Amino acid sequence: MREMPPSHPFDDDKLREECGVFGVTGVAEAANFVALGLHALQHRGQEAGGIVSYCPEEGFNSARRFGYVRDNFTKASLMGTLPGSIGIGHVRYSTAGSKGNTAIRDVQPFFGEFSMGGAAIAHNGNITNAAALRAELIDRGSIFQSSSDSECIIHLMARSLQRNIPERMKDALRRVEGAFSVVAMTRTKLIGVRDPLGVRPLVLGKIGDGWALSSETCALDIIGAEFVREIAPGEMVVISAEHGVESFRPFEPSPSRFCIFEHVYFSRPDSILGGRSVYETRRQIGVELAREAPVEADIVCPVPDSGTPAAIGFSHESGIPYGMGIIRNQYMGRTFIEPTEQIRNMGVRLKLNVNRALIAGKRVILVDDSVVRGTTSRKIKEMILDAGAKEVHFRIASPPTAWPCFYGVDTPEREKLLASHMTESEMRDYLAVDSLRFISLDGLYRAVGEAGGRDSTCPQYCDACFSGDYPVAPRDMIEKGFRLKAAE
Amino acid sequence: MREMPPSHPFDDDKLREECGVFGVTGVAEAANFVALGLHALQHRGQEAGGIVSYCPEEGFNSARRFGYVRDNFTKASLMGTLPGSIGIGHVRYSTAGSKGNTAIRDVQPFFGEFSMGGAAIAHNGNITNAAALRAELIDRGSIFQSSSDSECIIHLMARSLQRNIPERMKDALRRVEGAFSVVAMTRTKLIGVRDPLGVRPLVLGKIGDGWALSSETCALDIIGAEFVREIAPGEMVVISAEHGVESFRPFEPSPSRFCIFEHVYFSRPDSILGGRSVYETRRQIGVELAREAPVEADIVCPVPDSGTPAAIGFSHESGIPYGMGIIRNQYMGRTFIEPTEQIRNMGVRLKLNVNRALIAGKRVILVDDSVVRGTTSRKIKEMILDAGAKEVHFRIASPPTAWPCFYGVDTPEREKLLASHMTESEMRDYLAVDSLRFISLDGLYRAVGEAGGRDSTCPQYCDACFSGDYPVAPRDMIEKGFRLKAAE
Amino acid sequence: MREMPPSHPFDDDKLREECGVFGVTGVAEAANFVALGLHALQHRGQEAGGIVSYCPEEGFNSARRFGYVRDNFTKASLMGTLPGSIGIGHVRYSTAGSKGNTAIRDVQPFFGEFSMGGAAIAHNGNITNAAALRAELIDRGSIFQSSSDSECIIHLMARSLQRNIPERMKDALRRVEGAFSVVAMTRTKLIGVRDPLGVRPLVLGKIGDGWALSSETCALDIIGAEFVREIAPGEMVVISAEHGVESFRPFEPSPSRFCIFEHVYFSRPDSILGGRSVYETRRQIGVELAREAPVEADIVCPVPDSGTPAAIGFSHESGIPYGMGIIRNQYMGRTFIEPTEQIRNMGVRLKLNVNRALIAGKRVILVDDSVVRGTTSRKIKEMILDAGAKEVHFRIASPPTAWPCFYGVDTPEREKLLASHMTESEMRDYLAVDSLRFISLDGLYRAVGEAGGRDSTCPQYCDACFSGDYPVAPRDMIEKGFRLKAAE
Amino acid sequence: MREMPPSHPFDDDKLREECGVFGVTGVAEAANFVALGLHALQHRGQEAGGIVSYCPEEGFNSARRFGYVRDNFTKASLMGTLPGSIGIGHVRYSTAGSKGNTAIRDVQPFFGEFSMGGAAIAHNGNITNAAALRAELIDRGSIFQSSSDSECIIHLMARSLQRNIPERMKDALRRVEGAFSVVAMTRTKLIGVRDPLGVRPLVLGKIGDGWALSSETCALDIIGAEFVREIAPGEMVVISAEHGVESFRPFEPSPSRFCIFEHVYFSRPDSILGGRSVYETRRQIGVELAREAPVEADIVCPVPDSGTPAAIGFSHESGIPYGMGIIRNQYMGRTFIEPTEQIRNMGVRLKLNVNRALIAGKRVILVDDSVVRGTTSRKIKEMILDAGAKEVHFRIASPPTAWPCFYGVDTPEREKLLASHMTESEMRDYLAVDSLRFISLDGLYRAVGEAGGRDSTCPQYCDACFSGDYPVAPRDMIEKGFRLKAAE
Repeated sequence: MREMPPSHPFDDDKLREECGVFGVTGVAEAANFVALGLHALQHRGQEAGGIVSYCPEEGFNSARRFGYVRDNFTKASLMGTLPGSIGIGHVRYSTAGSKGNTAIRDVQPFFGEFSMGGAAIAHNGNITNAAALRAELIDRGSIFQSSSDSECIIHLMARSLQRNIPERMKDALRRVEGAFSVVAMTRTKLIGVRDPLGVRPLVLGKIGDGWALSSETCALDIIGAEFVREIAPGEMVVISAEHGVESFRPFEPSPSRFCIFEHVYFSRPDSILGGRSVYETRRQIGVELAREAPVEADIVCPVPDSGTPAAIGFSHESGIPYGMGIIRNQYMGRTFIEPTEQIRNMGVRLKLNVNRALIAGKRVILVDDSVVRGTTSRKIKEMILDAGAKEVHFRIASPPTAWPCFYGVDTPEREKLLASHMTESEMRDYLAVDSLRFISLDGLYRAVGEAGGRDSTCPQYCDACFSGDYPVAPRDMIEKGFRLKAAE
Repeated sequence: MREMPPSHPFDDDKLREECGVFGVTGVAEAANFVALGLHALQHRGQEAGGIVSYCPEEGFNSARRFGYVRDNFTKASLMGTLPGSIGIGHVRYSTAGSKGNTAIRDVQPFFGEFSMGGAAIAHNGNITNAAALRAELIDRGSIFQSSSDSECIIHLMARSLQRNIPERMKDALRRVEGAFSVVAMTRTKLIGVRDPLGVRPLVLGKIGDGWALSSETCALDIIGAEFVREIAPGEMVVISAEHGVESFRPFEPSPSRFCIFEHVYFSRPDSILGGRSVYETRRQIGVELAREAPVEADIVCPVPDSGTPAAIGFSHESGIPYGMGIIRNQYMGRTFIEPTEQIRNMGVRLKLNVNRALIAGKRVILVDDSVVRGTTSRKIKEMILDAGAKEVHFRIASPPTAWPCFYGVDTPEREKLLASHMTESEMRDYLAVDSLRFISLDGLYRAVGEAGGRDSTCPQYCDACFSGDYPVAPRDMIEKGFRLKAAE
Repeated sequence: MREMPPSHPFDDDKLREECGVFGVTGVAEAANFVALGLHALQHRGQEAGGIVSYCPEEGFNSARRFGYVRDNFTKASLMGTLPGSIGIGHVRYSTAGSKGNTAIRDVQPFFGEFSMGGAAIAHNGNITNAAALRAELIDRGSIFQSSSDSECIIHLMARSLQRNIPERMKDALRRVEGAFSVVAMTRTKLIGVRDPLGVRPLVLGKIGDGWALSSETCALDIIGAEFVREIAPGEMVVISAEHGVESFRPFEPSPSRFCIFEHVYFSRPDSILGGRSVYETRRQIGVELAREAPVEADIVCPVPDSGTPAAIGFSHESGIPYGMGIIRNQYMGRTFIEPTEQIRNMGVRLKLNVNRALIAGKRVILVDDSVVRGTTSRKIKEMILDAGAKEVHFRIASPPTAWPCFYGVDTPEREKLLASHMTESEMRDYLAVDSLRFISLDGLYRAVGEAGGRDSTCPQYCDACFSGDYPVAPRDMIEKGFRLKAAE
Repeated sequence: MREMPPSHPFDDDKLREECGVFGVTGVAEAANFVALGLHALQHRGQEAGGIVSYCPEEGFNSARRFGYVRDNFTKASLMGTLPGSIGIGHVRYSTAGSKGNTAIRDVQPFFGEFSMGGAAIAHNGNITNAAALRAELIDRGSIFQSSSDSECIIHLMARSLQRNIPERMKDALRRVEGAFSVVAMTRTKLIGVRDPLGVRPLVLGKIGDGWALSSETCALDIIGAEFVREIAPGEMVVISAEHGVESFRPFEPSPSRFCIFEHVYFSRPDSILGGRSVYETRRQIGVELAREAPVEADIVCPVPDSGTPAAIGFSHESGIPYGMGIIRNQYMGRTFIEPTEQIRNMGVRLKLNVNRALIAGKRVILVDDSVVRGTTSRKIKEMILDAGAKEVHFRIASPPTAWPCFYGVDTPEREKLLASHMTESEMRDYLAVDSLRFISLDGLYRAVGEAGGRDSTCPQYCDACFSGDYPVAPRDMIEKGFRLKAAE
């Protein structure tokens, strides 16, 4: 069932992480900490956010809002309705299916009242057998209140025969395929789980006598929590005042396949992933790129803001000076609410302006994180040439994005990905630039610390968006006609 | 799970009908008709309203809002999101349990997606075994999204083994005890059901080639529909383009026990109930009252607006002139949003003012529809005396309200009902008026057309609020400690 | 300069009072009292309201809002910004010129900072030489911030050479022609003024050690103030803690010409005007009408709510029973916000419904307060006939409205007034009713207490809307081409 | 007169430009271009914005809103109310006096209706004799509607005896002392003026057959206009379809004193000021700073975002690698709406996070644009040390800010400026850093292109905030007790 969309998102030609999750227990006014954590994770989902908290006097309380965390979950009038020392939260972008039609009921955390008490869950990832699960659950009498696939988890829990919530969650997640990092809570327990492949991140932090779970370490920093460790792929942690942090392994063991694009773009540069600084990894990608695809030029400029660390690395390695050739409007946010037609047509100029004086007459290297549809890259190239650049050389800090992601990232359909039907040189001609080079898949693996490059028999990461090598079969999509690489 | 309350209702010492339901099929832009119908039923529930519609191109759509129908469901921007030729709607006051804490999720209609398609239901009444049903359903894995008892119905339907929705609804309603008038819809069918006792009203209307179901006939008038007949107690009608109006009798037969308070106060005076004009019944109550409890006086004044028809009848029968001794502020609405303390203390003066010039020096008969807590009656009496009335005689158009209603009416706890612990003469002393008389129960039955008065072996109406004779045992309340009359 | 209109008013075929004014001094939290007073005067202006208060610590504060008083000036968050023991307020409908285009800057009170301190004024009435004054003031360098004629007064005050504010106000008002009842305030003084003819009402009340000024006595009642007296035509009162109530007569003496339509429709029935109860006057109009224009019939019904007292009087005099043949929807308010086209077409049915059971087969007398365009009367007649009435007789509690008002009442242009181009019998044919009779002008004067009827050489009231006899020449309108009766 | 504040600004320890102005003529839908221009100038004022446009059919229209341009002036519903081919706009921060208490009436442009037609003006700067002018104008009968000093200009124009608006504007501005860049409009003319010293910027652009005026060139870029030239100090341009761009010199000639802080911080890096790229000037400041105050270190990090170009220049000159040691939260905006106490206490952590992996164990040079109160610098230093830095060296891209600005910049009172009562070494001790160095005043002049440094007999720029040398006596402030440097 549809409800009115809240606003019209302004497309900006990037892959998008769809969710961030955060939870905390053992602190006064937990919801305020959750709000801060979600604010630090806002880059993982800007459309909406939700928080659930629990206190013995008032039970479970929740609030879900469209818009930024800072605009909603900071008001004393709202936060006062979320008392208690345990809470979880979620920020979301929209899923591919319901884009622009999201109802507030689709905003997580989801909540279920079971006979042994209530539980709330927040999910980052994507369930690849959700359609099949949903049909089965409806057939047995479950009533779905949202269009979100993640709601399956709470219904599976409701039908479990186990007598406590952590066991019911194990039951439920064993039926789920795909990628998931889940943060959940009961009246007394904070729970974190990662899928067996560990596709999406999840970390554990310590704050005073309490604990926090977060998609990224940058959200531990904002609340002053100490980073303890990553939750391991396939691990479930159950955190309570009584037993501290208990670790379980509810799934069959499996080799890790962490999303390599988290290093390239999704995660914040000040986060730590797999023991490595994201900023340093990105700078190293620039170094690799300068080695793989050197070019004579006068200046290295990032496409702001995500291309910045790789541009710095390229400059360091190549010795070509670094400069800000493109200036980003700080007041853009991600959306123009209900833009007029004239404003909609302004496109990239609303967000970026060329620093003409720096660019005029120069041979310019532009470092960007990725090329998706190529539409923005074309416009940037035109702006640079209009400003009088003599040459434009694109260097891209990821391999060509040729395949959609089915593990919790918003990607266009395959045919809309420029790299799905063009070679690197065709793309160069299409973009009409003097040169265009992507980092190689091996170069990327080296930059993330795999000195030997990609292990093609058993890749160390999920790189399906580059390679078409999907570690979990996207069952629902195959039902709908998606063809795997092997089938082409 | 609680969410923020929308506003603080302003108590005004009346029993309150909790819901109105309306549905229509076979008309273009059905949702607009539903909005009009709900506007005409607004007196049955002012807190919130919801509409669901269906069209083949866009499926089911819904909108639920706090506030008046006229303030929400009239905007083209909202109504444009509710296309289709079939729709149902609901207006609600809050239930006793959740007053002031209602979440938008508690606002009906409720919707469920079943394997054979979706259904939406709107419920007027109260389920007296809801707590037991809810516990049983949760135990089997149903997840409740609201705190509303009415949600049980949709979960019972989801678990039915029947292969079509009307049969599932029969299954579900056979498990439900209490009072219910239900309007429901599928993609092609409009469905109406009344409980076996027919406690709450439900009528059928014809509009062009289409049909309407409504709590009251006044809502048929507003859309220009013709009043066809009442849905009978225990009847289910299923209305479709294919088969027209089909009638079923899914329950065990039972003698009718329609709520007599609908005649006294809840229904609009321009509605027809049981073949009788509500206005005329109320005028007749005034006539009976003048016969039962005559008094010498100079003027008969209604407590506006609900006491007006009985006051007219009292004047007709007694020959004492009718006059407007109390003037109601038209701009009051039912609530003052977030009143300051000073304004809250103004109480009844915000809504009523005495017409001093008419009252001064007079012996005044005040006709009111009921006495609940007695707080408002006291204040009105004081206003009348302050204005210089020589005598004040209260005549009440209903018997003493001594028992709470458990069938869809918001009543205070028993001990807060003035008549639960005071006789008529004690109440007169408490209110400090020259005389106070309630219509007798037999007089009330005569006014509604039962010439022989109340049949005490098998009462023709539900009059539990006056008699303590509950036609359906209030099972959940008994569990919580409520004692029936027999047990006292 | 135009700004966006706030909403689309829903025409309902009545003349409209355009303003109500209220002020209080010598009470704690004066703004709360002003809000209550304005709430009681809401019938005089529903579009917007404003309050100014003063306290020594924070100076002058103001708040102006579109919408009802009860929806805005009741929130603690807003009222807390209006501290102090002196305050004035204003409610407004829109003036003919700017209907639908009102900006918040047009909402009164207006405020001006002079060299001897600030002053705020609220004006009920209309300045008939405003265009000329405005042009003259602009020519000398005044900058108008609103499109409101009333702003002239504050600019005239600013340019006065007098050294204190009451004297400046006298200077200003001596330049103003037309009708005005003004409530104003300085840091220490509450001021009230009526124009020499006393066209619009203004009364003085006492509350504790403080004082109140109000358009009507009903607003004194709501705050518990005692009605002291009316401000006399041509009188200015200056109220201060130091000197109490001082009375001045700044204008040339002139015979009184109070607006007779205040008795007929504008004022609330529970107010006292010229020592007479408005309710009783209206009832007496019904009595006169029954004498002047008797007819055989079965029932007398008011067109709610304004026709009610006259219908009661008609019933009393004629002996024909009184009944509620038309039921008003309590939840209508005056507007449907942004109605869809379908709802807009519903017209009168949204507000009124016929009580069919009472009307069917009867000869019905309908008593209404006035006929303006006649559009609503036609629709009501159709509803009554559709409900099965045998005969319909209209009795109108005012003479034919044939001339526009230029003294603060919103009237259609002359040619749109039905009575401007039709005789009584032509109107009867146009409305297609069995009979139609208006009260005579003499009958109306008798009802307001002038036993000898209207003194045609020197009428006791302003009755220009009936007679075309304008006590003050409408100078600006004559400039624009309006032709007086003598000129026809 | 005060009204409610819209929100509580979140202090962030920077000087703030208070306004940006923009105007355009000769283009269809001029208001859309103004909105885009204001969006590009949003860094000059984030609190509120306003637009006035004119078209012959509808006259002057205006809209003023609190909040970002992108959130208000992009909605078709609002922009459709601003038709016409000529328009001007304004963005504002609040002035020192009314911070947090701004009413919507204080939002520019201001509008006045004169006998020869209307005019709107938007003002960037500050009038140093405003209090005196205001008192004089009030004394003569002008009524101020805002607390803004800029309103004086429109009142002075209203009282001018000149017969056309440009001449009235000359009259008015000749009475005004201080800094002003004004954009104004009549029905047919777009007007731009800079004060004789040219303290604030104003540039002219060409777009198709039309023209634009803007505070900065970056706003010409966004609408695709070509940068023509700067308006000269003391110049007035009057632009019309009939006469094109006409230039006047209404003031006594005076040496130019452009605000040097526009180069340091206020203007956007992609703007051109005085023929120089702002980005390049800031990079050159970093070069000068590296020469004046070298230090051995491992990494140069900007305090984002304003320190970035100078940090790049410092790195280029020193050879020390550039890196992003501090990461800015992109979703911060400038404010947290109504933050809870807990969130307010988070301070700088809400906006900035340390890139721990990059910083740990390093000797870090932090380049910031300025030090005002020093509170933020202390917190940043602590964050850097907490992250494990071995040494922290601050390098500041401006001289010590020791004096408040009275020419349109929001500065704390003198005693709150750290540099007003501490030497460089005292500040180093106060901040507890290993070293702290500001660029010298001569170094800054060299960076902006004055090879010989500052001409102390006749400085080429206004640098009062560093030197205390005020080119226009701040008359109103001196009245209030401010002591000039010479008086100390």
